[in-house]
Amino acid sequence: MNIFRSIEWLDSHQLKVLDQRKLPHEISYLTTSDYCEVIKLIKTMAIRGAPAIGVAGAYALVLASLNIDRENYPEFKQHIYKCANEIKFARPTAVNLSWAVDRLLKKLEKTLSFSTKEDTSILLAEAKAIFDEDIEINKKIGNNALPLINKDAKIIHHCNTGSLATVEYGTALGIIRIAHEQGKNVFVFVDETRPRLQGAKLTAWELKQLDIPHKVIVDSASGYVMKRFGVDMCIVGCDRVARNGDTANKIGTYNLAIVARAHRVPFYVAAPTSTIDLSIQSGDFIEIEERNSKEITRIGEYEITPVGTDVFNPAFDITPAKLITAFITERGIIYPPFDKNFSKII
Amino acid sequence: MNIFRSIEWLDSHQLKVLDQRKLPHEISYLTTSDYCEVIKLIKTMAIRGAPAIGVAGAYALVLASLNIDRENYPEFKQHIYKCANEIKFARPTAVNLSWAVDRLLKKLEKTLSFSTKEDTSILLAEAKAIFDEDIEINKKIGNNALPLINKDAKIIHHCNTGSLATVEYGTALGIIRIAHEQGKNVFVFVDETRPRLQGAKLTAWELKQLDIPHKVIVDSASGYVMKRFGVDMCIVGCDRVARNGDTANKIGTYNLAIVARAHRVPFYVAAPTSTIDLSIQSGDFIEIEERNSKEITRIGEYEITPVGTDVFNPAFDITPAKLITAFITERGIIYPPFDKNFSKII
Repeated sequence: MNIFRSIEWLDSHQLKVLDQRKLPHEISYLTTSDYCEVIKLIKTMAIRGAPAIGVAGAYALVLASLNIDRENYPEFKQHIYKCANEIKFARPTAVNLSWAVDRLLKKLEKTLSFSTKEDTSILLAEAKAIFDEDIEINKKIGNNALPLINKDAKIIHHCNTGSLATVEYGTALGIIRIAHEQGKNVFVFVDETRPRLQGAKLTAWELKQLDIPHKVIVDSASGYVMKRFGVDMCIVGCDRVARNGDTANKIGTYNLAIVARAHRVPFYVAAPTSTIDLSIQSGDFIEIEERNSKEITRIGEYEITPVGTDVFNPAFDITPAKLITAFITERGIIYPPFDKNFSKII
Repeated sequence: MNIFRSIEWLDSHQLKVLDQRKLPHEISYLTTSDYCEVIKLIKTMAIRGAPAIGVAGAYALVLASLNIDRENYPEFKQHIYKCANEIKFARPTAVNLSWAVDRLLKKLEKTLSFSTKEDTSILLAEAKAIFDEDIEINKKIGNNALPLINKDAKIIHHCNTGSLATVEYGTALGIIRIAHEQGKNVFVFVDETRPRLQGAKLTAWELKQLDIPHKVIVDSASGYVMKRFGVDMCIVGCDRVARNGDTANKIGTYNLAIVARAHRVPFYVAAPTSTIDLSIQSGDFIEIEERNSKEITRIGEYEITPVGTDVFNPAFDITPAKLITAFITERGIIYPPFDKNFSKII
């Protein structure tokens, strides 16, 4: 089914990345052995999606461990930690990046190793484990969601949360895919997801390949769509979930959740447990990345606004827990009170 | 201040139109004496905005009366009514088009005329009256709104409702302009207004010329903006208001109204009384225009979606009366119950 893979580790000790900036019109891969290049690909969103940047960050640390003086062990360690920090701060909002890098570091600390070569093997094994687990987690999320999805469900989906945003299957889009594979006749209204149009470009592309019926809408049409066609549920992904359930996700998620509540449409967040950050008490403490104004003022080579127009371009927003019906995780569906129920499974 | 005028009647019996499809990068005028050409300009949105297309429709009927056989009077009348119908159905949602054309026809019926030349004069005089009144009405709307606007008001505005959408000043944007001229330190968050981006292109252009501080945002960021910065009010225009207050306006207005209510932000509709259609009981009976899918799938020459992607592209939505704080008309501010209070002023 999938002829593409967002990220792939090559035996030549290189990372192969599908350049998502060129989709849907061009399928183009980049290959690098430089961890700084991976950071750049994350920052410029050639690789995007919280789980995918987590995996990419892990492999970036492996690359960092390969390209240094292997003789001086203390310097090697110091270098690894310096690189780990650079990778973790490539993008600030999604927790997966620091979660994955920290997981590699923890593994390194736990293992008594006295050679750089051995350390690199440990890092690589852990990165591969994260990669493999991601696929399993997404399948479990999809299967766990099945009882929630009616046979002819009409679903609104925001941003892209499919195979491109993960290793395979995806989170929210993985739920839709598995429901479709299980014979449920789902129909997806695809929020185009301004400013970067991940819905119109990436989700529409994935749904087309999967042969799942869909229509793209502008983000602001969700209320009208709910009223006119009836919508069974909204499903979105997430970049960081606070202990109380407040959720950082792509800008527009909060508006969609408010509009869903006004129409009594259930609002589900597909969340690998790695995205739940118990160290953060509420959404108030999640840093929201602001991105370049050009994401709003131009599309491709096309200038939209008058020259010099000022914009406000937050990449994410916070959906308060009270607007979220449930989180769908690989360990089951979590209903409120989220604080209490998160701590049971994590 | 204004170096541009969206529509202008020339003594040479031609209509001069600012081609809004080329803004903000090119200020380009079209001149025509063919009413069919005016219909085309309305359909393709070279002229847009409910009040502006009303005025353009009136002048189109004048043009229609100029270009026919003037000898056969019954045929002349028949022709006028045929053209009037063509003009009225150029776009279905805004009531102003049929309101303006019907106003010309009514004038014609009321006046005992036996020559086509006299008829044309009657039509032209009435079109000019509508043109002149529009400016006065917008100024009154702006002045009537003044008590509602705090000194340092932060305002969210959707679509374009300025001089470009009217003859001069504008409706919702006219309110903002007059508040600014009266020394209130207003700040505007400009919804970019997908799919046609009238906010990012036209409203940003007008605000820049008027030197009113503003930032463009994606439509789905309104909730986050309200939460983060505090917003004092939303002001929008309208294309048709039903007797009960349900309001058809640019797609995204309904979502904005829901989000405003969730944040207890007052939601005002600037409405010339000509836009209030007492013949329509509720929003359920307002026809919503669906426009070409290309408005969503491409921007300029830039193809966004995969080839063949299906979209749903309603140009308008209906905001239910219960989400509207008040209508600001040239005859005063109208609070609920709208049905009762509309009938007092119309």
